[in-house]
This record gives sequence, C-alpha cells and structure tokens, in this order.
Amino acid sequence: MALKKPYLLFIGDVPDMLAAKTAQGVVDWRPDQVVGQMRLEGCNADLGITDMNIEEGVAAGAKTFVVGAVNSGGMLKDSWIEYIVDAINAGMDVACGLHVRLGSIPAIAEAAEKNSAELHDLRHSDVNFATGKGTKRTGKRLLAVGTDCSVGKKYSALCIERDMKAAGMKAEFCATGQTGKLIAERGVALDAVVADFISGAAEWLTPDCDEDMWQVIEGQGSLFHPAFSGVTLGLLHGSQPDAFVVCHEPTRTTMRGVQTPLPTIQQVIDMATAMGKLTNPNTQCVGICVNTAALGEDEAKAYLAKTGEEHGLPCVDPMRFGSQEIVAEVQKRFS
Amino acid sequence: MALKKPYLLFIGDVPDMLAAKTAQGVVDWRPDQVVGQMRLEGCNADLGITDMNIEEGVAAGAKTFVVGAVNSGGMLKDSWIEYIVDAINAGMDVACGLHVRLGSIPAIAEAAEKNSAELHDLRHSDVNFATGKGTKRTGKRLLAVGTDCSVGKKYSALCIERDMKAAGMKAEFCATGQTGKLIAERGVALDAVVADFISGAAEWLTPDCDEDMWQVIEGQGSLFHPAFSGVTLGLLHGSQPDAFVVCHEPTRTTMRGVQTPLPTIQQVIDMATAMGKLTNPNTQCVGICVNTAALGEDEAKAYLAKTGEEHGLPCVDPMRFGSQEIVAEVQKRFS
Repeated sequence: MALKKPYLLFIGDVPDMLAAKTAQGVVDWRPDQVVGQMRLEGCNADLGITDMNIEEGVAAGAKTFVVGAVNSGGMLKDSWIEYIVDAINAGMDVACGLHVRLGSIPAIAEAAEKNSAELHDLRHSDVNFATGKGTKRTGKRLLAVGTDCSVGKKYSALCIERDMKAAGMKAEFCATGQTGKLIAERGVALDAVVADFISGAAEWLTPDCDEDMWQVIEGQGSLFHPAFSGVTLGLLHGSQPDAFVVCHEPTRTTMRGVQTPLPTIQQVIDMATAMGKLTNPNTQCVGICVNTAALGEDEAKAYLAKTGEEHGLPCVDPMRFGSQEIVAEVQKRFS
Repeated sequence: MALKKPYLLFIGDVPDMLAAKTAQGVVDWRPDQVVGQMRLEGCNADLGITDMNIEEGVAAGAKTFVVGAVNSGGMLKDSWIEYIVDAINAGMDVACGLHVRLGSIPAIAEAAEKNSAELHDLRHSDVNFATGKGTKRTGKRLLAVGTDCSVGKKYSALCIERDMKAAGMKAEFCATGQTGKLIAERGVALDAVVADFISGAAEWLTPDCDEDMWQVIEGQGSLFHPAFSGVTLGLLHGSQPDAFVVCHEPTRTTMRGVQTPLPTIQQVIDMATAMGKLTNPNTQCVGICVNTAALGEDEAKAYLAKTGEEHGLPCVDPMRFGSQEIVAEVQKRFS
C-alpha cells in the first residue's frame, strides 16, 4: 500500500469530531504528510489545520484527497461525490476508509479512468484470508481492548509502540482499521472482512515473529457493543494476546451509537480474560489507558491514580502523559 | 428466493459426511424436492439416495443442480467446475452455498449466459444491512448455541420449530446459514456478511413479531471456536434470545478443523448467559440438544438422562427422540 503524499484531508459536513477520526489520526500521527483540511458548510469538526478547497490543496502540493470521515455503516454521502470527482479532475488520487468501494460509484470510476487516478479503498484488502486456526505463534502480542468504540484503542497502541521502542524494546504497530492503515500504510480493516474470516485475518496480521518482538495490535469495537462485539471477539481470538490493555473514556455513559450502557473496566478485564484464554491461556491485563481529554489536568491525574489503585494496574493517559508505566509493567511481567 | 425444483444434489469428492451437510440437510428436511445425488470418484459421503449423473438427473426431472458440499473457507474446487458447466449446459439452474460467487468463475458465467440459467449464491444476500442497534424487539426468540460447529444446531432449531407448532404454538425457523436457507428458502448466511454487520443482519432476520410468536434461530459456530466465535457472538447479541439451547456432539474431543479442545456444556451455558445479557438481561438456557447418532439407543438414553440431571435441564436428542421436553420447558417458563 503506497499512497502519494502529501494529503488534503476531506471531512465534509461530519456531525462531530469522532466522525472525523480518520483525518484526525493522520493529523496526530503523520502531520508532515498533510497540507490542510477541506470542510463543507455545516461541518462540526475542526482538525486545527489550514482550511483549503481543492484548488488550494493542489496548489499546496496535495497528491491524494483523503476522505477522512467515518460513520456507523460506512456509507458515502451522495452529496460528497461531486467533491471527490472534482479532486480527481484536479489531478489527485483518492483514499477512502468507508465500506463502499470508490470504484463502485460510476461518476468516481469514470473520473478516475479519465485522469488515470488511483483509488485506494482502505477498508478493503486483496488478500484471500484463511479461516482462523488458533495455533500458538512465536513472539509476543499486546492488544488494545475497549469499554466502547472510539475510546482511544488505536492511539493507545501507537503510544505503546512508541514508548516500547523508546525503552529499547522491539515493537510493531499492527493496524486493524482504516485509520490505522492510513497511518501505518499496512494492516487490515477487520470490520470489512467477511465474517467467517475475522480471526483468520487477525492471524494473518500478526504472524510468527522474533520471540522478543511485541506486535502492538489496534483494537476494534468492544465485547460489550451490540453492533460490533463479533469483530472484537474474532480479533481477540485471532490475535491471541499475551497482554492486553483496557481503553476507556470516562465521560461516556452509553455505547457509541446505541442506547446500551457502558460496561465497567473490571467487566471488560474479566470478559477479555475469560474469552481470551481460548487461544492464549496466559492472557493478562497489563494496564488501563484512559482518554482524559475531557478532564482538567489535576482531575485527570486524580482519575488515573484512583482507577489504577482500584484495579491494581498501571493506569495512564498515553497521549497526555505517556504509557511508560504500562511498558514497565510489560517488561516486569515478561522478562 | 425461489429455486426451481426438484434438485440434483452434487457432493463431489468430499472427504466425510460433515462436508456434505448442505446436501444432507435437504435430504433430511425436504426429501420430496430431491431426485438423487451425484458423487465423484473418491467421495467419502453417501446421502443414501439414488446415484445419478447429470444426464440421469435431467431425465428424472431435476431443475436445479445444488452444490451441496461445504468446507472451511468456502472455496470451490477447480475440479468441480466442469460438472457445474455440464449441468448448466444440460438445462439446469445452479445453487451453491460456498463463499465464492458462481458468476465470478468465467466458465460458469459464460455457460449460464448461453443457457439463460439462474445462478443462486446461497451464501450471499442483496440486502444492505444496517449495523446492530441492540434495541429490544417484540415477540420471543430461541437461539441454538453449540459447543462446536456442526453439532446439530440447525436440526435442533428445525425440530423445535416443528414440535412447537405441534404443541399449538406459533413458531418460525430463521436460517442463518446456506443449508438452512436452502431448506427454508429464506434467511441470511451470517458467516458471509461483512463483519461490521453481523449483529445487524441477525436483527434484520428476527424483527419485531407477535408477542406469542417464537422465532427459532439456527445457531452458528461456537463462542469457543477460534475461527468462528465472532460470528457466534454477533448472532447472540443481534438475536437477543429470550431462551437458548446448547447443542453438543458427545464423541467430539477437539473443535472442528482445529486443535482446540471442546468446551464443556456448562462453560457454554455460562458464557452464552454472561454475554447474552447485554441485549437480553433475562436470557436463559432452556435445554440441551445432543446429537447421539454415534451412540446405541440405550447408551443414548443413558447419556441424555445423565446430562440432563447434571445440568438440571431437559436434555434430548431432538432428531432421534423429539424435542417435546424442551418445548414444555419453554411453555412452563414463558407462559
């Protein structure tokens, strides 16, 4: 997967910041690859970078128009098609993380054909996955699991990879969603895999590796989310984690997009341990990652201290304060 | 979904009876719709009906050539393509329950075009599913869950539907796999749905219904199968069963196709209850269905009695002795 850089990030008229998380991920982790954002009237998200239209993006050097919005169901809004067509006609490739394939939309396919533009469907893979086998593989794996969707599993994994490397460990981020793929330029969008092959795709993503290598795996969904629990369990079984962290957002009361109440951190630890034992009898929780963005600094620190103490585990906001305590816990338990 | 009847059932050179389970399902539940079986050299399965080649099948009136074999991964053997083409050229439609789409194979697409034959991909659906919502729906639902794949979940559901109706209850079998779809001529093959939509598809399959209607839902996989657990959990959450039965095959020691040991019946009851509570807080196990085909009659009866007593639940072989005890338990608990 090789995308031409830099990118113009299109977020259309998304209703909130969570719906712009693909674009936000690129801004946070690959800022050098971005020239600006393009927003439409009514957009309730702001990536905090320069606003540009297509013409300005091309003038700033943009080579790929990245549709950086997500929504439950992964559909492309009809009203966005004309902007994608304009971007292609202005000379850009297009990358998109929705379920719909760009080439399945006639106006987009036609424009791409005419301009020899490349269309990158981040959600899709050309790999023919096998079904899962459950066989133990070499090397070490750490999986981010969550109390809900969109609570910071990807960022936690990216932080832990960064902090493991800083601590002299071998580590590799393994992307399981479209945003992670865009950041890592490799991986598999598990939620778009045919259901029979979820854990098989997770096994493909995290193959045998050096015994001292940590594959740090982006989590998906939640075992307690009524829409996405199947993806979560398939990933848990396929990735056979030696260690997992629980990711949490402390102000959330119902699961993203539905009315189901949030589980507790302890419920997630218990269920992930109980289910995870199937493919790794020694799977264990090594820490808690909290997204404290909604809390002031003192409040955040107090919350992390209290939550860590309650669970007897390192509890960090990896984006705000780093994940070194979790990395140290991993070193202690697996040395 | 309307297939032209009767069928010639093609099972190729499958290695065992379990691999012929789609064809066997039609023989067991829709015998009037079948003219015979077609087997190739090396086939280790026998449906116990007349062997025919394509010419003989057409002479006996066959209108649809049903590829009645399954395998892990759902691929079509290259060596079977010529027989499918021959069947089309002899005037039959084709129905197939594998993951691969018949029309994606050029020789088959070409023959179908030339002969105006219909190609039925049972694994696939034209419905655009939404993601799951987890909202409580009206009516009652009973789900078959299993200790493993291929232990009798579909047959148990079909028996329970039959026995509920015989007891004067309103009941409807809901197919979640290709064989069930072939028998019921409606349903959705959940293992072929894109992972994000597993529970959404299960919700679509089991919509609001009369309060005294029981939707009897075919189960898939096992919460303890390392390849297919994601499908199982998505189905459990999407179908929000009021009641479930655990299906078991007593001679199995490792899960189908992998080296993972079988869970106990009690582990499956506990895990399905714990996970199922998310979308139905009152979900409960109402019985155990054992496939005792490998046991003699006395041995089977002793096994059922012992297993039922151990778990404090009705325990039946629904195919051999009927599922009336489970139906009575449902009536008692939900009257």
